[in-house]
Amino acid sequence: MPYVKIEVTREGVTREQKQTLIKGTTDLISDTLNKDPHLTHIVIQEIELDDWGYAGEQVSVLREKGITANKK
Amino acid sequence: MPYVKIEVTREGVTREQKQTLIKGTTDLISDTLNKDPHLTHIVIQEIELDDWGYAGEQVSVLREKGITANKK
Amino acid sequence: MPYVKIEVTREGVTREQKQTLIKGTTDLISDTLNKDPHLTHIVIQEIELDDWGYAGEQVSVLREKGITANKK
Amino acid sequence: MPYVKIEVTREGVTREQKQTLIKGTTDLISDTLNKDPHLTHIVIQEIELDDWGYAGEQVSVLREKGITANKK
Amino acid sequence: MPYVKIEVTREGVTREQKQTLIKGTTDLISDTLNKDPHLTHIVIQEIELDDWGYAGEQVSVLREKGITANKK
Amino acid sequence: MPYVKIEVTREGVTREQKQTLIKGTTDLISDTLNKDPHLTHIVIQEIELDDWGYAGEQVSVLREKGITANKK
Repeated sequence: MPYVKIEVTREGVTREQKQTLIKGTTDLISDTLNKDPHLTHIVIQEIELDDWGYAGEQVSVLREKGITANKK
Repeated sequence: MPYVKIEVTREGVTREQKQTLIKGTTDLISDTLNKDPHLTHIVIQEIELDDWGYAGEQVSVLREKGITANKK
Repeated sequence: MPYVKIEVTREGVTREQKQTLIKGTTDLISDTLNKDPHLTHIVIQEIELDDWGYAGEQVSVLREKGITANKK
Repeated sequence: MPYVKIEVTREGVTREQKQTLIKGTTDLISDTLNKDPHLTHIVIQEIELDDWGYAGEQVSVLREKGITANKK
Repeated sequence: MPYVKIEVTREGVTREQKQTLIKGTTDLISDTLNKDPHLTHIVIQEIELDDWGYAGEQVSVLREKGITANKK
Repeated sequence: MPYVKIEVTREGVTREQKQTLIKGTTDLISDTLNKDPHLTHIVIQEIELDDWGYAGEQVSVLREKGITANKK
């Protein structure tokens, strides 16, 4: 009976990327814990940049300064 | 001091249905646990169909295939 | 596809009361939104009294002062 | 590794107020628990008035009756 | 800035399985959304069987009846 | 009607520190948004080190390597 919530900043996540996250997480849980996918629910929640704070700053401010969350 | 979060797919839930969920959940908790309703908060969160995954598929895709969540 | 989280203070909630909350919430959602109960998951989370704050005070402190959450 | 979710009703919270909440919560956790702010994430979620229930009533209905959440 | 919460029933999930879930989810998000893993936090929450309800029944009751969540 | 959830790793947070977090968060919200503290609920949830993942690793593993979350 797994339930997964994925929270990410709203920065152009596509429908295809969401499907990849949903399929990938469901498969990971199914493979690791042997859970029936029909009992696995995944919810993605996109958060506005003004509403996410990191290190005491709004992400919208960090982005204005050119600071991204991209992989190095 | 109860707090309840109800997450449902965004598929035309009306204001009246939300009020029914809020009143019903508050009464259920009050009747079962003897809690003062003035300490009970209920939050409903509607989730876009692209953002909810079930059995590894986006609900938006399931709906396109004619698969609903309706009671049988 | 509903998911419900019920958070209450840990103050002797019995197994039977939990079952009543689970059955009642599932029925309420099924009756109100016509949702298949096989797609409805309910999670109850009990919170220690030191870990719940109300009006700026720990509930454990409120209880020591004789302030309950009981219905009036 | 703290994560904080702040849920408030959507009633005109400004960008500056959000920044104040983010900075204040991050500092509070850093000062109290000695946590590195670079490991602290804060998420603010605004909830529509129809979607928040208090004492068994939608907040939108409470507001129509002139009942606010303002400090006395 | 992703944050992920994974809720599963407490049924003998091992430390190694948790590590697999954490590594797998972080990699999935990094690969799909190009996110820096140093900004990705995963929280696993195990839920007692009396506290998870499915189809209106406590999972502890379902297990007593021999109904599992195993993949078919 | 604010509700706040604070998730931190379980690493010896004291009752007094929890009270400081509860009082501080409630005051911050009251001062910033003019909210009545009697409508503000704060929930602290401590997470076991095996259950929190950061940068793809369990925090328990990071701590064994001597990597802390302390402020620099």
